[in-house]
Amino acid sequence: MKKKIAILGASGYTGAELVRLIATHPHMQIVALSGDRKAGMAMAEVFPFLRHLDLPKLCKIDEIDFSRVDLAFCALPHATSQAVIRELPRDLRVVDLSADFRLRDVAEYQKWYGQPHAAPELQAEAVYGLTEFYRDDIRAARLVAGTGCNAATGQFALRPLIEAGCIDLDDILIDLKAGVSGAGRSLKENLLHAELSEGTHAYSAGGKHRHLGEFDQEFSKIAGRPVLVQFTPHLSPMNRGILASVYVKGEAQTVWAALESRYALEPFIEVLPFGALPSTRDIRGSNYCHIGVVGDRIPGRTLVVAVLDNLTKGSSGQAIQNANLMLGLEETDGLMLAPVFP
Amino acid sequence: MKKKIAILGASGYTGAELVRLIATHPHMQIVALSGDRKAGMAMAEVFPFLRHLDLPKLCKIDEIDFSRVDLAFCALPHATSQAVIRELPRDLRVVDLSADFRLRDVAEYQKWYGQPHAAPELQAEAVYGLTEFYRDDIRAARLVAGTGCNAATGQFALRPLIEAGCIDLDDILIDLKAGVSGAGRSLKENLLHAELSEGTHAYSAGGKHRHLGEFDQEFSKIAGRPVLVQFTPHLSPMNRGILASVYVKGEAQTVWAALESRYALEPFIEVLPFGALPSTRDIRGSNYCHIGVVGDRIPGRTLVVAVLDNLTKGSSGQAIQNANLMLGLEETDGLMLAPVFP
Amino acid sequence: MKKKIAILGASGYTGAELVRLIATHPHMQIVALSGDRKAGMAMAEVFPFLRHLDLPKLCKIDEIDFSRVDLAFCALPHATSQAVIRELPRDLRVVDLSADFRLRDVAEYQKWYGQPHAAPELQAEAVYGLTEFYRDDIRAARLVAGTGCNAATGQFALRPLIEAGCIDLDDILIDLKAGVSGAGRSLKENLLHAELSEGTHAYSAGGKHRHLGEFDQEFSKIAGRPVLVQFTPHLSPMNRGILASVYVKGEAQTVWAALESRYALEPFIEVLPFGALPSTRDIRGSNYCHIGVVGDRIPGRTLVVAVLDNLTKGSSGQAIQNANLMLGLEETDGLMLAPVFP
Amino acid sequence: MKKKIAILGASGYTGAELVRLIATHPHMQIVALSGDRKAGMAMAEVFPFLRHLDLPKLCKIDEIDFSRVDLAFCALPHATSQAVIRELPRDLRVVDLSADFRLRDVAEYQKWYGQPHAAPELQAEAVYGLTEFYRDDIRAARLVAGTGCNAATGQFALRPLIEAGCIDLDDILIDLKAGVSGAGRSLKENLLHAELSEGTHAYSAGGKHRHLGEFDQEFSKIAGRPVLVQFTPHLSPMNRGILASVYVKGEAQTVWAALESRYALEPFIEVLPFGALPSTRDIRGSNYCHIGVVGDRIPGRTLVVAVLDNLTKGSSGQAIQNANLMLGLEETDGLMLAPVFP
Repeated sequence: MKKKIAILGASGYTGAELVRLIATHPHMQIVALSGDRKAGMAMAEVFPFLRHLDLPKLCKIDEIDFSRVDLAFCALPHATSQAVIRELPRDLRVVDLSADFRLRDVAEYQKWYGQPHAAPELQAEAVYGLTEFYRDDIRAARLVAGTGCNAATGQFALRPLIEAGCIDLDDILIDLKAGVSGAGRSLKENLLHAELSEGTHAYSAGGKHRHLGEFDQEFSKIAGRPVLVQFTPHLSPMNRGILASVYVKGEAQTVWAALESRYALEPFIEVLPFGALPSTRDIRGSNYCHIGVVGDRIPGRTLVVAVLDNLTKGSSGQAIQNANLMLGLEETDGLMLAPVFP
Repeated sequence: MKKKIAILGASGYTGAELVRLIATHPHMQIVALSGDRKAGMAMAEVFPFLRHLDLPKLCKIDEIDFSRVDLAFCALPHATSQAVIRELPRDLRVVDLSADFRLRDVAEYQKWYGQPHAAPELQAEAVYGLTEFYRDDIRAARLVAGTGCNAATGQFALRPLIEAGCIDLDDILIDLKAGVSGAGRSLKENLLHAELSEGTHAYSAGGKHRHLGEFDQEFSKIAGRPVLVQFTPHLSPMNRGILASVYVKGEAQTVWAALESRYALEPFIEVLPFGALPSTRDIRGSNYCHIGVVGDRIPGRTLVVAVLDNLTKGSSGQAIQNANLMLGLEETDGLMLAPVFP
Repeated sequence: MKKKIAILGASGYTGAELVRLIATHPHMQIVALSGDRKAGMAMAEVFPFLRHLDLPKLCKIDEIDFSRVDLAFCALPHATSQAVIRELPRDLRVVDLSADFRLRDVAEYQKWYGQPHAAPELQAEAVYGLTEFYRDDIRAARLVAGTGCNAATGQFALRPLIEAGCIDLDDILIDLKAGVSGAGRSLKENLLHAELSEGTHAYSAGGKHRHLGEFDQEFSKIAGRPVLVQFTPHLSPMNRGILASVYVKGEAQTVWAALESRYALEPFIEVLPFGALPSTRDIRGSNYCHIGVVGDRIPGRTLVVAVLDNLTKGSSGQAIQNANLMLGLEETDGLMLAPVFP
Repeated sequence: MKKKIAILGASGYTGAELVRLIATHPHMQIVALSGDRKAGMAMAEVFPFLRHLDLPKLCKIDEIDFSRVDLAFCALPHATSQAVIRELPRDLRVVDLSADFRLRDVAEYQKWYGQPHAAPELQAEAVYGLTEFYRDDIRAARLVAGTGCNAATGQFALRPLIEAGCIDLDDILIDLKAGVSGAGRSLKENLLHAELSEGTHAYSAGGKHRHLGEFDQEFSKIAGRPVLVQFTPHLSPMNRGILASVYVKGEAQTVWAALESRYALEPFIEVLPFGALPSTRDIRGSNYCHIGVVGDRIPGRTLVVAVLDNLTKGSSGQAIQNANLMLGLEETDGLMLAPVFP
């Protein structure tokens, strides 16, 4: 029998991506979709690309009977998520795609998100959702906090290197190129086609991007000492995809070997042959992450490039991967879709 | 047990799209991939987006043992296809994606393709591959000729109207906007990103596009009299997708009703509510075709708009749909992937 | 001495395009820029691409001393324009880029724009701004109404044919592909990069687009009888450019000859050799319009394709062309910029 | 009287960009255009966007009468350029846009370009064409070597900082995002729209890009000691534009002040207010370079971002700027075109 799924906040891009993926998931079935401002509308009106599917109408959250729901994905905006999840039944499995439960220290949450945490007692039970590194915890978790999409990309490149102790922890630099869907369906001038296409620019530069909170938390935990990285995201004129160019001080072959051995058995992480570098065009629409390594002409300096689709592996695909574990399904169920190229 | 599939010409876009779709097909397994100039290479080298798959290396066609193949897809260039298929075992099921077997009258083939047909005896047994209209013939066929992608789009909009006799047969106009992947992986200046992005232009205008051969053949057959349409394709700065704006003289509600009733049970054809028009963004990467109808302010004139993904429903998805029928599988097997948006 | 120019509504795309063009105009100087909601800001804040220019700050309209202004461009939204122009000094030369004074019959205005005309007495003195066809009237005018960008493109293709009487007036069809900057800097979901790029769709189909008011008015006037055309605009994933595919019943060579002779001396209209068709990539950023003609395989049917840049020849370039005439300057002053390719 | 200009290699993008800019240059006139494989063709056939101009036909180089030429731009491929320029009259002013005369040390040329220099005696007289830093030498030069477009962008960000001695010379990192027109009109699969749009990837990574030869030469010369930088270019799905994210160790305010004071009087270099960062959309089609500076959260680390249009300021605009100096014209003649936005 299929697992019954509710999606809270189904009118945004990550909500729609969850529906897209579940549409061909063998063991999940959508029983409720919420969308506050669009309650009462059919999904086909909000997202015509889903019109071939037989889906419940969008409703308000309090109209959902959670007693018949096995797991809820929460694809609501930051801050709203905390308030909503706090009111859900305490035995309901939840995968949250917002930033609300990513930072274990609620003081860090307040620092990066500018307001006090509204559900510190739930924070205590939340598991950080980077599947490849928290698999056992996630399997046992009730509440999983999906990672930031940029944060996931950077961590896939760096965690094995920090674990292996093969790079200088005081000189790590992440220059990231992100597709525009990461900004969501928000109406801003700089997201208009006329302004974004044919242009690129840095944003939240200088150590201001909120995903730094996740980098700080995770890298420091692994290293057992504070680790601060430099991180500059750039908006690139493409819809899906993140490419992180990660500059480290460490020997290139050692770096490559650390990644290669760490990910050898991972179903969704592909480490390219030494010297080959990945492209975002090769992971679009899929749950795969490609990683490449090349040494610099300056000895001891190495470039690691990681790519993934921000909406899939960086968000909704990761969420389903975690939900599969929480529900006792195969981790890869519904996620083996090949990338779409060209 | 899975059906054993060979793909001849796997180094082009339609070949790669076949691999993408078969990757999650429950009852097909790829046992051979040919690519003449790239024989010996791994698919991951030619198409890095497929690197997570365990695939046979590219080989030459004559290296394939067809006795262990249940069905071959032929994704070779026009003219090459005839020569290759002629040499294949006569009991091998073949779905050809080229133009070589689309036109029943070999004189018409010579007229549109500029050279004599090389396998007229095979032409006699070939079935035209527009699944929704040749389903029974295809089920029984050994050799199926995939349609042109533009030809498919126009026919989905027009066939039911000609069948129903509700439009003027002497005044049909198809203005079509096509994504660039339809031109294949060919190296031409006007397909370069720098030249195509941010630009649009008509091509093969004035009744010169070869897919007119298919329109002439099919529409005249349905009508029982010669039907000549006007057809202008335009290249649009997008990768996947065809939008056909079809202008007819006929009453709009009648036109919509004819489409609605004809496609009510079709799994891949969605007729939108009267007055709503489709967009290519809503079918990208999928086997779905969306059709909309709107009446003009001038009474008796109607616009029908049909959209599909040229590489999927217009080519490789259609090919698999046909192969499913030929192999006794469910017609929709492996093809229910939702479109990718945004 | 340079002519003193005010731009009302300088914070939108057409306002910014006026500034771009005047930046290298030999005989115009900007003395005032208004932008209601952005009054007090520097243009470099609103449009960083103009930061190299020494420009007045954005102000409110009532802060402008019009006694020292030779000509005002009014780039305000429809309806606002009427209200503003009504309050300007009655001897001030004005080029309006909105739709407010395009339709001579105020009943037609009400029909297409859904509200009564607010300044019918000014409408009486307004001259329709299609320079190539109203040159003498424009030279003598005080108030010129810039045309719609789609309306201009269609008229360049069709006016000489209606004048020459060489096409069937009852069967004219304009299928138009428009870049997204034509929609202005408005915040709508379907103008977001993530939704528009890689997609195309028809809008205002079925005879609902407001530029039909201009087609009706102008074509009927030339023909001396009512002429109604079919017109479907499509949004295309490019920023600048309009391509109008105009289908007529008439002999192709005659059609070409009518266009060729009509535009032989025009500085901005290029008629291509018979059989060649234009592309939007070849006029981007310029005041040029390219027109091509090809005959259909069905005798007596002809395709005319016209392209121009909606922001330049379709709007702000046309406005400056008209202003040049009104101010006694050379018509081509400041407008000979070559297109930007690639 | 206008200066008579020849363009050798006018059938590529940089050649076409020279024609575009000279079209509105007040003191230059094109008298000859060469294009070996396209000799005999009109420019309008090769580049329809130039069809409004009255231009000489493309010819072979040996058909040009250089006695009536004041200056030749050489927009030929690397290596070809050396061979051609060697045969030109020794008193002819030449601006070379290729890489052939950029490296003063011919051993460095051989190292980076893989073949011996064919005209070392000419190399001795060549002046490096970064106008803002070699103005006096260029004014007096007969042969000027245009810089690499990436090399120009990086140098605009870094030269004043090395001159001022305010950054660590052993830890400079340039992560660069480049539009596709920089690759020229070359027919390669990864430059096709279908493959490049919606994708981004690094290339020539790990210290292999040839423009490193220029960085090494220039930075070491300024510093008076060897300076090696890290440099990773990425191809971005846009046509024009380069954005260089330059990471340095130095105090942010000091870095900003060094740039601000160095460029205060430069007509084409705009240093943004401290903390503001530039975008490629704001310099497209123009000769302007925008530079911004932001400090990192880690004290002593600073990000400098520089943007320019690779075809204009990075190549053909720079070439005209240099030619203006060599011909005794105003440096800014013909180059004040505002960027094209959107």
